Amino acid sequence: MISTALSTKLGLRVPIIQAPMAGGPSSQELVAACSAAGALGCFGFAYTQPADMEKQAAWVRERTQAPFLINLFTSPQPGEITNQRAALDAVAHFYAELGLGAPQPVQPPYAPDLEAQLATVERIRPRAFTTHLADLPRERVKKFQSLGMLVGGAATTVAEAKHLESAGFDFVIAQGGEAGGHRGTWMGDPYDALTGTLALTRLVARAVRIPVVAAGGIMDGAGIAAVLALGAQAAQLGTAFLPCPESGASQVHKDALLATEEDDTRITEKFSGKPARGLANRFIREMADAPQLAFPAQSSITSKLRVASAKAGKPDCVALWAGQAAALSRKLPAAELIRTLEQETIAALRAGAALVKE
Amino acid sequence: MISTALSTKLGLRVPIIQAPMAGGPSSQELVAACSAAGALGCFGFAYTQPADMEKQAAWVRERTQAPFLINLFTSPQPGEITNQRAALDAVAHFYAELGLGAPQPVQPPYAPDLEAQLATVERIRPRAFTTHLADLPRERVKKFQSLGMLVGGAATTVAEAKHLESAGFDFVIAQGGEAGGHRGTWMGDPYDALTGTLALTRLVARAVRIPVVAAGGIMDGAGIAAVLALGAQAAQLGTAFLPCPESGASQVHKDALLATEEDDTRITEKFSGKPARGLANRFIREMADAPQLAFPAQSSITSKLRVASAKAGKPDCVALWAGQAAALSRKLPAAELIRTLEQETIAALRAGAALVKE
Repeated sequence: MISTALSTKLGLRVPIIQAPMAGGPSSQELVAACSAAGALGCFGFAYTQPADMEKQAAWVRERTQAPFLINLFTSPQPGEITNQRAALDAVAHFYAELGLGAPQPVQPPYAPDLEAQLATVERIRPRAFTTHLADLPRERVKKFQSLGMLVGGAATTVAEAKHLESAGFDFVIAQGGEAGGHRGTWMGDPYDALTGTLALTRLVARAVRIPVVAAGGIMDGAGIAAVLALGAQAAQLGTAFLPCPESGASQVHKDALLATEEDDTRITEKFSGKPARGLANRFIREMADAPQLAFPAQSSITSKLRVASAKAGKPDCVALWAGQAAALSRKLPAAELIRTLEQETIAALRAGAALVKE
Repeated sequence: MISTALSTKLGLRVPIIQAPMAGGPSSQELVAACSAAGALGCFGFAYTQPADMEKQAAWVRERTQAPFLINLFTSPQPGEITNQRAALDAVAHFYAELGLGAPQPVQPPYAPDLEAQLATVERIRPRAFTTHLADLPRERVKKFQSLGMLVGGAATTVAEAKHLESAGFDFVIAQGGEAGGHRGTWMGDPYDALTGTLALTRLVARAVRIPVVAAGGIMDGAGIAAVLALGAQAAQLGTAFLPCPESGASQVHKDALLATEEDDTRITEKFSGKPARGLANRFIREMADAPQLAFPAQSSITSKLRVASAKAGKPDCVALWAGQAAALSRKLPAAELIRTLEQETIAALRAGAALVKE
């Protein structure tokens, strides 16, 4: 058992948070397995409708009494996008290649209604809730807390972390530059907010008084021990859980992670309209300078491609979200991975203390 | 005292390496103070002529018997550059502003002769030698080792680290994306080699058998404890030593580091011709899309600007090299900083082990 003030408050045996990964990977099976094993399982419900949110949460609760978390993208939605021609033309050759015909204009809403999702969270009452891509009004934070939830938010800069603290958040997730998936930046330019996990975790831990969770590039117990040394009270791991049999990531995604031997990730906006880190593939390379729609409308254009590419067993058009240390991926059931992470973390923490002589 | 196999081999009391910072900051005073305090003082001799290298090394040896290190840029020099007009025009307004007249074409050699520098290292015989921006032929590595030196090299990717190991290097410096100053990348595109320190240190530690030194964003004992947890056998800190009274950094540079509260760094090629990380200032912003000469000829064009700007007490045209955690800078004499780092590291290592319960 490894305890910090935050992990105790969250009711965890180990200070490990399975990162919410919207769009499938953080399946109900993965959340249940992680929570039951003493880590914090997290739903990435950004693209999930209220009815399905309730169904999945209930599924987990039938299997474990352990706490879990719900995460949402709390950023505003764009209105109707009129001129989509250039963005559609840019993906047309991929559509043709995968036998999908011509890409069609996409209509709003481009994602589930945020207010309805937030109301659903209030009905589900998970142990914790976190924001990504934006903050949350102070009144909502208080409401959630009054319902027994701990509220956290992702920050990629000191300024964002301080803002969350002053808005009453219970904890902040320092999302370092290494992190896979969507950059959480919501104040300023995301490309100016690529501070590495080591630097960002320390900067944020020194700048705020609320607990800090570190995310980005953490794949094993050595990484967890490192962020604990930096002052984080928990480590959030996403990529590490993607190859688990319980994860809903596609097989091509899992295979690509297990095959990579180097940091072969790139940041692209072409899958969703907002910058996100994934393994470089044909889509990322060929779309580098292509036009795109605003987030998340671009996602509606590329979803067919991603599904068809995964189904065909080709990584070319799949969003292979991955952090920079993806080369350390391993294929273990979630419970076994968490047990291994715990043992590695304990070994690393003890080995560190043993370096002190006299 | 904190001991690793590498720190013992190097003869250090603490596994801390003061990063070589060419062009002034790693002055003989800083090197002597760091080495005398039980860390490894390092000369950044990239721009230093052989006679001066010998003089400075002798100065340190008069003051301490402790080991020190010499670092060189081992990359090849460009030949004469004929058409310099666009690059000169791009800096003309800064020249005028600082009363320097019109910028003049620069002639080779743009830096000291590498072969003469390497021969000087053989005469000086420091305890250790490291490369930056390139590797070193295997025969030279052997020669240096036969003279009693440990040979290390900077790597920004797993591929570079493996190459150094196979070329017989004694250790590898994993230079994470957080690091200030010149990106050490020498295989491939430096912009594809911005892996964060946490991820890179772990990737490299798992990929090679030779000892790993971690660099990038480490500013205090928590950062040192973190990289030790990641498997590094020493931490290399540059920015942390810049504000020391012994450092040769300009006063505007020191003041800028102590004033920053966030990661305000950018990567620019405009000071030297190669990408390097520093605090964003007018020069970096206004030169973003400007033409430039090849490395290090661009440095010859900008050196007058940097000197004049520092002399005028203006940060506008100074190369304010800084890592992403520069906001954690503090103003302490080198020996006191090293003592503080040691105490903080011990505290962090012990606090980490105390998180393990039962």
